[in-house]
Amino acid sequence: MAYKATSETGEFGLIERIKSIVQPTLESAPELVLGIGDDCAVWQPSTELLQVSSTDLLVEQVHFDLLTTPAKHLGSKAISVNASDICAMNAIPRYALVSIAVPPSMPVEMVEELYRGMESAAREYGIAIAGGDTSRSRSGLVISVTVTGEVPEKMIAYRNGAKEGDIVCVTGTLGGSAAGLRVLTREKLIMMEHIENNETYNRNLMADLQEYTGAIQQHLLPLARLDTVRFLHERQVTPSSMIDISDGLGQDLGHICNASAVGALLQENRIPVNSTARLIADELQDDALGWAISGGEDYQLLFTISKEEHKKIADNRDIAVIGEITPKESGLLLKDIYGITIDLTSLPGFDHFK
Amino acid sequence: MAYKATSETGEFGLIERIKSIVQPTLESAPELVLGIGDDCAVWQPSTELLQVSSTDLLVEQVHFDLLTTPAKHLGSKAISVNASDICAMNAIPRYALVSIAVPPSMPVEMVEELYRGMESAAREYGIAIAGGDTSRSRSGLVISVTVTGEVPEKMIAYRNGAKEGDIVCVTGTLGGSAAGLRVLTREKLIMMEHIENNETYNRNLMADLQEYTGAIQQHLLPLARLDTVRFLHERQVTPSSMIDISDGLGQDLGHICNASAVGALLQENRIPVNSTARLIADELQDDALGWAISGGEDYQLLFTISKEEHKKIADNRDIAVIGEITPKESGLLLKDIYGITIDLTSLPGFDHFK
Repeated sequence: MAYKATSETGEFGLIERIKSIVQPTLESAPELVLGIGDDCAVWQPSTELLQVSSTDLLVEQVHFDLLTTPAKHLGSKAISVNASDICAMNAIPRYALVSIAVPPSMPVEMVEELYRGMESAAREYGIAIAGGDTSRSRSGLVISVTVTGEVPEKMIAYRNGAKEGDIVCVTGTLGGSAAGLRVLTREKLIMMEHIENNETYNRNLMADLQEYTGAIQQHLLPLARLDTVRFLHERQVTPSSMIDISDGLGQDLGHICNASAVGALLQENRIPVNSTARLIADELQDDALGWAISGGEDYQLLFTISKEEHKKIADNRDIAVIGEITPKESGLLLKDIYGITIDLTSLPGFDHFK
Repeated sequence: MAYKATSETGEFGLIERIKSIVQPTLESAPELVLGIGDDCAVWQPSTELLQVSSTDLLVEQVHFDLLTTPAKHLGSKAISVNASDICAMNAIPRYALVSIAVPPSMPVEMVEELYRGMESAAREYGIAIAGGDTSRSRSGLVISVTVTGEVPEKMIAYRNGAKEGDIVCVTGTLGGSAAGLRVLTREKLIMMEHIENNETYNRNLMADLQEYTGAIQQHLLPLARLDTVRFLHERQVTPSSMIDISDGLGQDLGHICNASAVGALLQENRIPVNSTARLIADELQDDALGWAISGGEDYQLLFTISKEEHKKIADNRDIAVIGEITPKESGLLLKDIYGITIDLTSLPGFDHFK
């Protein structure tokens, strides 16, 4: 297999390769009238359903590092984080538009791997990759994904519906993504040191990362919780509010509380901390609970629900009850294992732009 | 007014500023259930209408140069180029999602200007800016816009419907954008020279650009031809195929001919070359017709239509008849003013990725 830079294939050559890779995702979309190949993607909206749409921009060196992120994983994650936003409305993701800006020196094979990852994730969720844009970049790789989904009006879950007395629930485990990132960053530093000392870096050293898989996978290949949304639809349960955890449990709960004009009280011992994150925290003498609360990027669903509605889903062991909604004046609190109450907003990680 | 970098406002501070700027665009959208502020934008699709969606990624130093492009114009153009894709389907643009990646040093004022330009263009087209994403960039500014529109199924215009004997039409004038870019690039080189020689650059020198306005405006502030789409709807005329001119008349006609499996014969003397472009071409000893055919970025609509249907719109002086559709075997030809036939695909500008 010869190395070929994207600058050699030309834009239309690249689009043809991309089209053939994402083609299988179209099979799940009978309402898609037209995919890639015209000025727009075209679909027939389902009768009586709302359209919900979300977009994310992923920038090299800000959101990802190609030294520690395989292109295929990156493609999968780009689809998953947007699908997760759709799930956070209790909606079903349907169509994706994908744009990339590619440095001219980037190998075509790498761009293809990126799209293979997208195709694989899209097929997993039943999303049709229906269009997009390709262009050059003068610096790093940029990926922009927009996903549109559908949901019946009476089942949509906004951020602003949490009510005093509601239960706070979260899916899966938390802190895995932050822990995985710590391990990958450490590996990268070791690798850079080898390179600086002109030593050969042995990729096989990474074999002993095996025990960290539960965290690294959560960071590199997070999954949108479409399974939870399907479960909620099956049980005909609509959360009073919902969000996906991208900024961190504390900050995302803050978004719900702000929008709903309520407070919340979480119980530390109920927070489902990722077990691999605990292992890594012990090794690095860091704090797994801190990662669970402020780490972000776990893409679990955080939702509130009335006590009566919760009975209908209480048998799901993958949904943890972690606290309850309180009056606004009480603020955003965490009761720790010693019974001491901490103000969640005083913790770090409450603004990731700076 | 004090200088403030985006790194000082934080992500949520910036989002609040952006929300207040784009707020007025929401008034035109009664079907928009929810704009910025949740995980997704939410809208109620109009009954019986298809949804059409298009996305574009604009990268600093590839698609624009902040030395020659005012931020407000750039914002307007980012909306217009996507609205133009929607118009190219004979559809009405409705909702936009906008993402930006901002270098931390960029002044907040500049980001606000960018959104003021978007707001102004969006309001012009009746588009609601309903959501998006903000993030840091490690290098230049990146803008990603996705616009969704609506159109009745029987009025949609694809690229693949052109038929032998159809008339080829184009709106407005061509070559203005390429000519405007040439003038701006020349000004930039003069400016750079002044800076290199440590001379003070006098911005007032740019005052004599007045006579080039017709071309510079076409480059910096192109308008999507929504007026033409509304006219076609009023007259109940559906083009057999349509595209907007982003790559250049020759290349975009090539897209229609490829998709429709037909050829085309254009008449040079019918091509509406922008008059300011002619003026600039004379000065720079360049070729205005070349810019009209291969320059691109004019965002006019190029469409084919049957002779009978054309009668219904023949009174529109802003729509020029420039040729006709021929059998596929005839290829893509231009008859020049001397009656000599040239192969359009032999001209430069048929792949802009390299």
